[in-house]
Amino acid sequence: MEIGILGSGMVGQTLAAKLVEVDQEVLVGTRSPDKVNDWAAHNPRVKLGTLSQAAAHGQAVINATSGSGSLEALQLAGAANLNGKILIDLSNPLDFSHGMPPSLTVCNTDSLGEQIQRLLPQVKVVKTLNTVNAVVMVNPQAVAGGDHTLFLSGDDQAAKDQVRRWLREWFGWRDFFDLGDISTARGVEAMMLIWVPMMMKVGSPLFQFKVMR
Amino acid sequence: MEIGILGSGMVGQTLAAKLVEVDQEVLVGTRSPDKVNDWAAHNPRVKLGTLSQAAAHGQAVINATSGSGSLEALQLAGAANLNGKILIDLSNPLDFSHGMPPSLTVCNTDSLGEQIQRLLPQVKVVKTLNTVNAVVMVNPQAVAGGDHTLFLSGDDQAAKDQVRRWLREWFGWRDFFDLGDISTARGVEAMMLIWVPMMMKVGSPLFQFKVMR
Repeated sequence: MEIGILGSGMVGQTLAAKLVEVDQEVLVGTRSPDKVNDWAAHNPRVKLGTLSQAAAHGQAVINATSGSGSLEALQLAGAANLNGKILIDLSNPLDFSHGMPPSLTVCNTDSLGEQIQRLLPQVKVVKTLNTVNAVVMVNPQAVAGGDHTLFLSGDDQAAKDQVRRWLREWFGWRDFFDLGDISTARGVEAMMLIWVPMMMKVGSPLFQFKVMR
Repeated sequence: MEIGILGSGMVGQTLAAKLVEVDQEVLVGTRSPDKVNDWAAHNPRVKLGTLSQAAAHGQAVINATSGSGSLEALQLAGAANLNGKILIDLSNPLDFSHGMPPSLTVCNTDSLGEQIQRLLPQVKVVKTLNTVNAVVMVNPQAVAGGDHTLFLSGDDQAAKDQVRRWLREWFGWRDFFDLGDISTARGVEAMMLIWVPMMMKVGSPLFQFKVMR
């Protein structure tokens, strides 16, 4: 199927490379084509375009922009190109202005996931993958043989179920925890406050949470 | 050994009952002795007293007060009674003023653990157990046979190592993740933002996180 990826940083590149490997039709939307021409030359099956081209291209669209630029990038992508579609939102509202570890641009009673859903009320926003390094996003087996949990937040149940099927098919994810509506993005985004110190301790992003019962 | 527990709510009661069962000398400090007389009558090995008596009694002291009252309770407990001791802080800065799920009284760049450490600079504050229901605190086996992870935050490494040994000995905890200094309490306290929605979904507090590598 056609997938639009918004953002051509490390996360967007990693997702795009894997998605074409599993025979999806990927168009990466970027504001900085000059910075990724080299990468694109080595990944000829990935198409490159503007943010609005990526949004128009995708039957589903992935927000892989950095959190600080997500709302602006989604405005450039254009509501008209996104309406009615599933937007897989894996951004984190990281605020590096206080140094490391980062804090968040949101606080307790809001989340970037909700801000995006409010900006694009006709879009089915599904927050997921934000608690995972890009390498693990596309290859959950890289940590503990894939034995860990991925969270989902979103207002549209059918969209969450669809995303779950896609993530299983594309990347091999198998353990999901559906937290509830998009307001539960507050919880997964706030996990960055423990995730970054953990990464600094482990010395690698190759760890993950598993929900035990 | 002598253990002082600050707070006589459900958490303090559960800890006290278990600690006397494993032959510790427990004094529970409370501001509401009338509310717990019945419970105390059924737990004759637990001594009851004021917050300052509990702080003076303990070689180690556990802060089991609710987060909204912790700083005031610790002031009543008295720095002179606590200085030089390990304070196991399992409070959460929950703010129920916006309804359920609760938000936090802290925001990204501070934590209740740090507030307590600033209030009591001579005390070795170790934040732990706050991501766990009281039933699981004293019986980690209640979830997945004990196969899940407990986090530790604190500035004093020897104090964290001691708390780790106590929690193994008293309750049977065996999988620990030392996050770093007390500022990492921001991360474990923010986990309440995902923990409460998870509890509402699971329909029980009998779940827990395990760190997978």
